[in-house]
Parts: sequence; structure tokens; C-alpha cells
Amino acid sequence: MYSFICDYSEGAHPSVMKALSDVSYEQNAGYNYDKHCAHAADMVRDLIKRPDADVYFMPGGTPTNLISIAGSLKSFEAVIAPSTGHIEIHETGAIEATGHKIISVDDCPDGKLTADIIRRVVGGFEDEHTVVRKMVFLTNPTESGSIYYKSELEEIRRVCDENDMYLYVDGARLGCAITAEGNDVTMEDLGKLCDIFYIGGTKNGALMAEALIVLNEKIKPDFRFHIKQRGALTAKGFALGAQFEALLTDDLYFNLARHSNACAQKLAKGIAALGYEFDVISCTNQIFPILPKPMIEELLKSYEFYVWAPKSDTHSVIRLVCSWATPEEKVDEFLKDFELLHQKYGK
Amino acid sequence: MYSFICDYSEGAHPSVMKALSDVSYEQNAGYNYDKHCAHAADMVRDLIKRPDADVYFMPGGTPTNLISIAGSLKSFEAVIAPSTGHIEIHETGAIEATGHKIISVDDCPDGKLTADIIRRVVGGFEDEHTVVRKMVFLTNPTESGSIYYKSELEEIRRVCDENDMYLYVDGARLGCAITAEGNDVTMEDLGKLCDIFYIGGTKNGALMAEALIVLNEKIKPDFRFHIKQRGALTAKGFALGAQFEALLTDDLYFNLARHSNACAQKLAKGIAALGYEFDVISCTNQIFPILPKPMIEELLKSYEFYVWAPKSDTHSVIRLVCSWATPEEKVDEFLKDFELLHQKYGK
Amino acid sequence: MYSFICDYSEGAHPSVMKALSDVSYEQNAGYNYDKHCAHAADMVRDLIKRPDADVYFMPGGTPTNLISIAGSLKSFEAVIAPSTGHIEIHETGAIEATGHKIISVDDCPDGKLTADIIRRVVGGFEDEHTVVRKMVFLTNPTESGSIYYKSELEEIRRVCDENDMYLYVDGARLGCAITAEGNDVTMEDLGKLCDIFYIGGTKNGALMAEALIVLNEKIKPDFRFHIKQRGALTAKGFALGAQFEALLTDDLYFNLARHSNACAQKLAKGIAALGYEFDVISCTNQIFPILPKPMIEELLKSYEFYVWAPKSDTHSVIRLVCSWATPEEKVDEFLKDFELLHQKYGK
Amino acid sequence: MYSFICDYSEGAHPSVMKALSDVSYEQNAGYNYDKHCAHAADMVRDLIKRPDADVYFMPGGTPTNLISIAGSLKSFEAVIAPSTGHIEIHETGAIEATGHKIISVDDCPDGKLTADIIRRVVGGFEDEHTVVRKMVFLTNPTESGSIYYKSELEEIRRVCDENDMYLYVDGARLGCAITAEGNDVTMEDLGKLCDIFYIGGTKNGALMAEALIVLNEKIKPDFRFHIKQRGALTAKGFALGAQFEALLTDDLYFNLARHSNACAQKLAKGIAALGYEFDVISCTNQIFPILPKPMIEELLKSYEFYVWAPKSDTHSVIRLVCSWATPEEKVDEFLKDFELLHQKYGK
Repeated sequence: MYSFICDYSEGAHPSVMKALSDVSYEQNAGYNYDKHCAHAADMVRDLIKRPDADVYFMPGGTPTNLISIAGSLKSFEAVIAPSTGHIEIHETGAIEATGHKIISVDDCPDGKLTADIIRRVVGGFEDEHTVVRKMVFLTNPTESGSIYYKSELEEIRRVCDENDMYLYVDGARLGCAITAEGNDVTMEDLGKLCDIFYIGGTKNGALMAEALIVLNEKIKPDFRFHIKQRGALTAKGFALGAQFEALLTDDLYFNLARHSNACAQKLAKGIAALGYEFDVISCTNQIFPILPKPMIEELLKSYEFYVWAPKSDTHSVIRLVCSWATPEEKVDEFLKDFELLHQKYGK
Repeated sequence: MYSFICDYSEGAHPSVMKALSDVSYEQNAGYNYDKHCAHAADMVRDLIKRPDADVYFMPGGTPTNLISIAGSLKSFEAVIAPSTGHIEIHETGAIEATGHKIISVDDCPDGKLTADIIRRVVGGFEDEHTVVRKMVFLTNPTESGSIYYKSELEEIRRVCDENDMYLYVDGARLGCAITAEGNDVTMEDLGKLCDIFYIGGTKNGALMAEALIVLNEKIKPDFRFHIKQRGALTAKGFALGAQFEALLTDDLYFNLARHSNACAQKLAKGIAALGYEFDVISCTNQIFPILPKPMIEELLKSYEFYVWAPKSDTHSVIRLVCSWATPEEKVDEFLKDFELLHQKYGK
Repeated sequence: MYSFICDYSEGAHPSVMKALSDVSYEQNAGYNYDKHCAHAADMVRDLIKRPDADVYFMPGGTPTNLISIAGSLKSFEAVIAPSTGHIEIHETGAIEATGHKIISVDDCPDGKLTADIIRRVVGGFEDEHTVVRKMVFLTNPTESGSIYYKSELEEIRRVCDENDMYLYVDGARLGCAITAEGNDVTMEDLGKLCDIFYIGGTKNGALMAEALIVLNEKIKPDFRFHIKQRGALTAKGFALGAQFEALLTDDLYFNLARHSNACAQKLAKGIAALGYEFDVISCTNQIFPILPKPMIEELLKSYEFYVWAPKSDTHSVIRLVCSWATPEEKVDEFLKDFELLHQKYGK
Repeated sequence: MYSFICDYSEGAHPSVMKALSDVSYEQNAGYNYDKHCAHAADMVRDLIKRPDADVYFMPGGTPTNLISIAGSLKSFEAVIAPSTGHIEIHETGAIEATGHKIISVDDCPDGKLTADIIRRVVGGFEDEHTVVRKMVFLTNPTESGSIYYKSELEEIRRVCDENDMYLYVDGARLGCAITAEGNDVTMEDLGKLCDIFYIGGTKNGALMAEALIVLNEKIKPDFRFHIKQRGALTAKGFALGAQFEALLTDDLYFNLARHSNACAQKLAKGIAALGYEFDVISCTNQIFPILPKPMIEELLKSYEFYVWAPKSDTHSVIRLVCSWATPEEKVDEFLKDFELLHQKYGK
């Protein structure tokens, strides 16, 4: 059974594995104070054109999120996030466990926060009986595969500036946003617009590694303390740095993301061609077609994927995810099987 | 410059690297629900003869410690630890950041908690104005390289039973304890004596992986929630499981530890033979010779190591650590250089 | 200027003051272990017909809320609350500061949670990547002055039972709910339906005191530890107990609430008689009339009250609150002034 | 049975009760924004000669301690306290529950931290693997009744300045220190030497109230947020302010403390005159005589007090505490009874 469950089903890309092998018997300083982290950090700084950035290599997405938030905020400061945001629903209260409130916002179009929504939230009453709204959290691409456009991010930046708030971008799948068709946001833009953000490696070719980038001078000073206190200052940090050295060489990171997107979009195109609709329009590596329930049952006999949400009595939304490692022939196979089922189950 | 700084300077053993390579294009379920974690967990259960154990694979030592403690205790329950314990001094308040008090105990002989010390601590007044002493934390081997003997652990177990307390063993370097000369504690003993403990992989051949073992039925039920909430439920958990599959095959884990110990003990023997004393007697992979300061200065020109503590106006304690990857010729080289310096600087 | 700002503008009722004076030179045990707390707790148990209840006397509403929640929940368990709930918006993230998530629910009719809303929330996906929904929080009367009817509470209880959840009622103004016109919930009902709730004294005749009642056996055991750890185990607990002895003697507590309600309802009736509408229909001691802005400006010259929310370009909602100490002549005076302004400003 | 258990057995002094009665029907703003808090704060500022001080009125000692510490420190910063300090042993881990480590120091002479001890603690290794030592906590008088002299506090201030640390003084019984025989510290001195400290009312004539004084500009800005978030922003703050208005009028606060001290010292003198020794020499309102166990048994038939600690097979230490309300005749009575027992049980 082939799996379209997620983009962390496979290990690491061969170039990443080679980088890891290369450090096997090499001696390196611990806790990110090594030459690989230093080099990879420079590569990140080049990529985003921010020579002043602090760059840390982290072992996973949840620790990166919770440390970015807890490390930036005072205890009574809160983060605004879409109600569909990863930190709100899929991290077991990890943010609150550090003592911080998430102000959850419903009705975000395509899962995206907008400047207007944020303005409405920060427009409410605020004094010592309320939390202080201090950070905007967004994921690019979102949990529904949509991406933020440059003008949207710029306007969100403006709201943040007007209200003395930080902008934090969770880039677990950032490569897929940057390489999506229609995207107009560059890495350099992110370097200009964010106070803190991360480039996710784990879901895009790394074994496990995220590059966290701190740009705001107010957040920078104590960051290593926060990383250590929350358990994410990795002893063999060099193994994280080495992975990013590989990913950022010869555009590998973006090529892998391009591949994930292409596979998913090929799936989407094939499904759409047969007349099926989608719950949200995604231009990245996860797609959300609406299918008849019996058809889903049949598909599940040959493929793994999530049945995402019920849509009606007869139809449900499913999620199909492609990764850097998805073979194109598996995509073709799926589409062939899909067409057969389509003939049997109608739409 | 060769480094005797620590045992996490190198990457992973070739067998571990091979295991990681093998999962590169294999699809696995996420978050420890895969066949490698399942298999490695079985291997751990066999090793400790506890078929009922819950086994989790974790990405590092600090998250393992903070989750083991926060996941076992109610908010007002505290953990007793030696004042030299890792959680007390080298984790940036990571335990307290989860809300729990560490009751720090001074004057532990060789860095070891004893049943008597614990009895003295639990003998004090306890009601709702105090924390409840609920867990004993110890490291085996200790931060000074000493090990716990079976009778010591059994007596500590007895105090724990008498006082309804959990015993948690931080086994970051457990292999080095088990394979140390003179050790009489088996993995099976630990399976019997502990409520929760971990087998450290990162410092013994893994790239990054620890095997956390939960034995007490009261601690078991919600453990995955705690791991996720604290940011250590690794998406590619299979990559952690695969590392332990390699380490637990053909006794590799213990052979690597034996090698680390042998290298360090060879260093110790050579240094002692020239008449030098040691700050503590260690039978494991880190040793603490007391050397004249000018000699230390000279050694630092060719080798990296920590100057651990001042001992007198003229002498300091240094720490030398060997790892699974330390080449025996580097040990011999060091001893040769050391003898030359000895002739020059006396002792 | 007379103030209709809130119901904690005045000190304590004379009977409460007398009770406090009576303990001035009397020696009592500390920390709630005295005869006044014991007696007042018995009075509470009688009132709610739950001889098995644990009763604690607390110094204020926020500590009572945060301890009730943090003392009942495991770290990864969350509480469901209306988005207008006090803990969600007016306690500066006090609940999250204990590590717990509030699942905030929009669109609660009249500020009330309903069984259907709760069912929808608990119907979602739940595993170790999400928090566990474990408690329902509601305020009776709500922040908009509405009350819960017996059938509503019973149905909420049913949802809680079906989903193994606790029901916690914040009764900061509970007297006003129980004595409201149309109310059909008795104190005995609350004793049957809640797992934990509190009877607010501070807003109803006490100087500062709340009676917290723990009914569920799972919550009871460690409660004094939680109260102490969060800073609310009052040294002179007897002074809290004595206040409740006074309040629960001769029905004083409910008579005071009746008075607050009567004053506010007289205001409401007078305002309605002139044709004004209300933002929500309240039967308790706070009312929310919609008035023309110039009229509000004029009223603010003689009275203190909150301008609650804008309603349209020309009108705003104001909040008027009466207390146990509001003199009826002030109500009459206000209505007289109001009628004059009405003639001037139309409606 | 008369009780020498503690100094919070009685209610409030008549002047305090009168102040509370006076606000019964007076309308005041909530949450410390009233004229009584404003006036009492001015009185505090006059007393300590710091017109720039921020003053907050708090409902009890534990919330004051935990908010002072959590409100001053970043998450990875720690507070140094004597191992006998209240926050270390008698607050159920309340400080750790806010996420902060207490660095507990043994062997403090007479329960007092010294500049040398603090220097030793801050002299150790500090980087991102350790907490940052940022605050010194001391109690004046200490838990054993001893007091800090001016030169001692000045030297501690110097260490704090050298190491960029805050000095926080828990003044739960501050009146007793200031009025103790031999004391040379003035309120003005405290205003100069501390970054933050509190004047305890609850143990000295108030019903429940502490005056918290924030002097350091770095701590000031967000303090009301911290107070609210931790549940101690009292709705009827005016009732706390009014108590301090009474206490600070006509030197009442210090007169009451003088009385407590005088009673306890009369007890001490009488006991010493018969040849008994003391565990620590206290010049304040709690004394620690060492008595034969059978004599203690007899005393306990007529008086309540704590048996503090065993001293030998035959003797124990007891604690006797006098308060603002202790009648001198009870002291005389105790001494008469004591002399009779002395004749019977020898010493």
C-alpha cells in the first residue's frame, strides 16, 4: 500500500544522508557551536539577505514553535493564530504549557489570517485584565495548502508595526510555499517581513532539522537559554547544521519542494479533470478533493491517506500529501486507479 | 587537535548510519507508530526482561529528563536529586520550567545519592505547605563517572517503596555503567528496580536517540500526551527506532560502551602510573586527573578537554572523556605526550 | 457622582463586618483549619445538600478560577468556555499561565454555553496531538446577566457524563442567578449537577471571600496543595469562614442578591418603559440598555458606568450594575434624571 | 488554652477594623485604583523616602512572593535563597510553579544569607546550560527570628550590583525587624537598598494585606499584569489600602511590632533566667528555647505552640510566637507556669 498520508513518511534525501555520514568520525563542538552550523547559518543568512540574522538549528517543529513563542513573549503576552493553526489544534496545548495564551481566530479564508482579521482582534479592549496581543502566528503554506501572497504579508507586517507586534511564520513546509505556482514571496521578502520564522527541513528532505531565524533585536539576546530550557539545544547540533548544508547546496531544498508540489498538483489536475471539486484550493503539496464515500472506501484498500472531514451525507474530504520522495509513477498509478473507480462510483 | 571534551563530538556509528539510510525511501507511519519503533521497543523489553514496559524513542537527553519528571508528577510533587545532578545544574531550569521543584541534596559521596540521604530528606515535615517528595532522580554513571552498585540501588528502591516514591534513572551513559569494571547491575536489574529510566543512545553510537522506558502503571497512561506537549514526539520517530534497532543488534550498544570505558581507563592507568591522583575514582569513560597548571597549559596546546575545577594554587582537575569513536592510537599518543610533559613539569 | 460601575465598589455588609470584628481578638488556627471555616463549610453543605462536599474559602475570584481549573486537570487537559467567559478575556491569561488551554467557543446565545455547542466541540478529533477536553466552564449568571435554566444545566451535565468531563460553575454572582425572576435552579441542584463550583461572596456582601465546593472524588484528594501552591491558602482563613457564617445566616446572602436584582430590574423597567431597547435581556443585577450617544454623554456627568460597546453610529450599549449596597433612592434618582434626558435627547 | 503558635491567629487591630467599616458603604474604584490605595501608597513612599516607588497592596504573603519573583525574572533566571527560606520550604513549590528555579543555599548562619555565600554561588560557571542567577531573596527577620544589620544588607547590595542581580526582601514580619533591639536598619535604608520588597501587614495588625514596593525601573513596567495573571489583583483593593492607611497612621504598625517583640523577649528573658538555652538567638517576636521533653509535654497541656525540632534524646526545640494581640498577662501566666514546671522537671 502506497501512502499519501504525510510528507514525513520517508527518511532523508541521499545528499543529506551523505552529509550525516561525513560527520560520523569527524569531531565537532557540541550544541550548535560547530563549523557545520556556522556554515549553514551563513547559507541561511545569504538566502534571506540578512547578514544580521541569528540562526539556530532545531530538531523538530513543535519545539521550534513553542520556543519561538515562549522565547519572544513575556508571560502575559499572547499570540494570535487562525483556529486551524497547527499550534492551536495539533500540539496538545504545547504553547499554553509554556504559560502563553493563543488567541484563536475563526473564519480565516483558506486558513489564512488577514490584516483585517488581526486589526479586529487588536482593536478590542486591552489593559491589565487582558492579555497583551504581541505576536501574529501564521503558517506558510497553511494547513490547507494555501499560500500567502506578498501583498498580504506586507499588510500583516503593517498591522504588526502599528501595534508593536511580532510576526512569526511557521515554515514547516516553507519550500512548498516558495516554489508553488503563483507564489510571489521570496526568501528575501521573509527576511524583511518577519521578526522570527523557520525553514522546515524535516518535511522536505532532512532527517530531522529546522532552521530557526531570529531577526528582531528584542528577541535575540537570550535565545540560547530558551532553546536549552525547553529541551531543544541538541548536543550533536552539528548533525542538524550538516543537514542544512546539504539542503541549501545547489538549490536542493527548493528542488525537493518543487517535486512535492508537482506530484500533488498532478494528482489534483487529474482528479479535477474528472469533475471532482476540492474543499480548498491548494497550490502546494497537499490537496483536499471531495469524493463519494464508497469511492473513498475503495481507494483506502490500495492507498493510505487521511479522510479529512465529512462534507455531506454522501461525500467526504480526503487529504493527499506528496513528498520529496514520492515517485512520479505512484502518482500515475493512483490516477489510473482513480479513474477506474470514478467509472464505477460516479462522482 | 584531538578532543577529549565529551562523548558527543562524533556522529553515528556506521551500523546506525546504515539503519538510517535503509529508511530513506521506505514509508513509515509517523510519531513512533512504525515497525522500527515497535521492533526496537521489543528489543528493549527483551533486554530488561519486562514484556510489559512502555518504550518511547526520544530525540535527546534534556527533553527525556523533563518529560519523565513532568509526566510522572503532579504539579506539587518534587524530585530529589544530587546537587551535582544534570537536571539541577546543567539544564537551565528545564525541570522548574515545567513547574516542578528539584530538592537538591549536597554532600553526595562520589556524586551518588544514598538511601540514607534520601531517608533524611523524606524524613522532614511534609504537608500542604511543602512539596511532596515523590521521585528520586539519579544518573548512572554519575556526572563524575562513578557507578551505582546493585545493593545501593536495591536500598534506594526500598526507601522509594517505603515512601511511595518513584525511582527515575537518567541513563545518558548507561552503557558505560553496565560495562564498567566492577559493575554488578544488569539491564534486567534496572527493569526490576526503576519506575522509569532511559537508555542513552546519543552518547553511545547513535546520531540522536534515547530509549525511554516506563514501567510503573501509574505513569504509563498519558505518556504520549506529555511527550507531544513538551515537543519531543518526533514526526520521523522511525528514525529513532531504527537507530536503536542497530544499537541493540549483536550487542553493539554495549561493545561501544566497553570501548569508551577501555580507552578512558587506559588513559587513567597511564596517568596514575606516573603518580598522579584523581579527583574522583571513575570506572567509566570520563576521568578526572589532578595535574599541575603549567602541564595543563601545555596539554591544551595539543588536546581539547575541560579544565574542570581548581584544586589548589598549583593544581587543577581536568576531565578527559573517551567515546565509542575514540581511536586507540589517540589514547596512546596522548599518553606519550603526557609522559614527556611529566618529565618536564614534574607532578 | 453615584456609581453603577460594578458590584464590588462597596466594602462589606454590617453583619459581615460584625463577624470580622468578633474574631479580632479570638485565637484561631491558621489556613482554614478553624471553627469558623468548619462551621461555614457545614452551612454550605447543608445549603447544597451534599454532606460529602469539600469546601474551601478563597480570597477572590481569579485565584478560585485558576485553582479550580489547574487543580482538576492534568497538564494536557483543557477547559471549554464561551468566548465571552471571564477566564477567556478578563483574567490576563491566568488559566494559560498554569499551563492549560481554554477552548474558546464563539456564538454562545446570551453568553451561554449549550449542550449542543459542547457536543460539537467534543465531537472533533482527539488524540495525543490534541488537548483532551476535560472540563466545561460556565458562569451563572453569565457576563451578560443571563441565567442558566435547570433543563439547560441538566443537559450540559449529560454531555459531561457522556464524555467524562467535569462541570465547573463560576458563581461569582451566584446569588443573583438563584434569586432572579424566572430562575428554576436551586443550590441543591448545583450540588447535584456540578463537579466543582463556587459561591461568590465578594460581589454580594462579603469584604472578600468565595466558597469553593469540590464534589467530584477525583478532584478532592490534593486540593489543599493546589490552593497553597497557587498562593491562595489564606493564613487568616478564619476571616473568610467568618464572612460566610454571616452571609449564610438568616438567608442574608440571598436577600442581598435579591436586593441587587431588584434595583437593577427597577432600572431596566424604567428605561424600557420609555421605549429603549437592551443589548441582552438580563434578569439579574447588571443590565445593558442601548442609548443615544449624546444622552450617554450627559448621564456620565452625573453617574459612573461602563460604556460597554458601540451599537451603531448613533447608539451605544452601556452597563449598569447594582449591588447589595445600592440605595433604592439612587435608583429612583437615576430614573428621574434619565426621564429628563429622554425628553431632551429622544431615544 | 492560650496559643503561641503564630502571629496570624487573631483578626485585625481595632483601628484597622474601623478603617474597613468606614469603607462599607463608600463607593470606591476597583483593583487598587482608589483613593485609599493612593493615599496608603503615598504614606509608604514617605516612609521609605522614595517618591518614585510603585506600591501595590496584596492579599497575602505567598502571592506576594511568587509575583515578586515571577514578575521580575525572565523564565531562565533564578533566585538565590537560604535553604531555610520560606519560599524554599513552606510554599509548596509556588515559585517553581511559575517556572523559576530557587538556588537553595545551606549553612546560612542564623538563617541569614551573607555576601560571601552569595559571592560563592554567583562565582560558579554560568552559560546557557545553567540558570542565570538574577535575584537574591531574603527574609527580614528570618524564619529563625534573627535580623539583618545595615552593614550586612549593604554588602549584599554590593554583590547584587557587581553581578547585576536584584535584591528582594520578604518583609512578612518587617515591623518586628525594624523595632527589634539592636536593629540599625531603617525603612529608608530598605528603600535605598532593595529592588523590590514588601511590608507585611497580615502578621502585624492587618486582617490581610501586604504592601509591595517596586523600586527598580526594570521591574516596574508590567507589574499590574503579573499581579492580575497570578490571581492577586484584588477587586476590593481599597479594603487593602484602607488597612495600610490605618497601620501607617500614628506609627501603629511599628507600635504593634514593638509589642510583639516585647512580649516574646519577656518570655525569652524569663526562660533564660532559669538557665535554659536557645536554638537560635532571636531579638524579634519568635523565640526558640530548648526544653526537656517531659516539660514540653506538660506545657502542651496548657499552651499551643510548635515543637520545632528534636535537639537530643532528652530535649527538643520549641517555637513560641507573640503577636500584636498577645496580652501581657498571658506572657506572665506562661512564665509562672513555666517556673513551676521548671522546679518539677529541672532543665
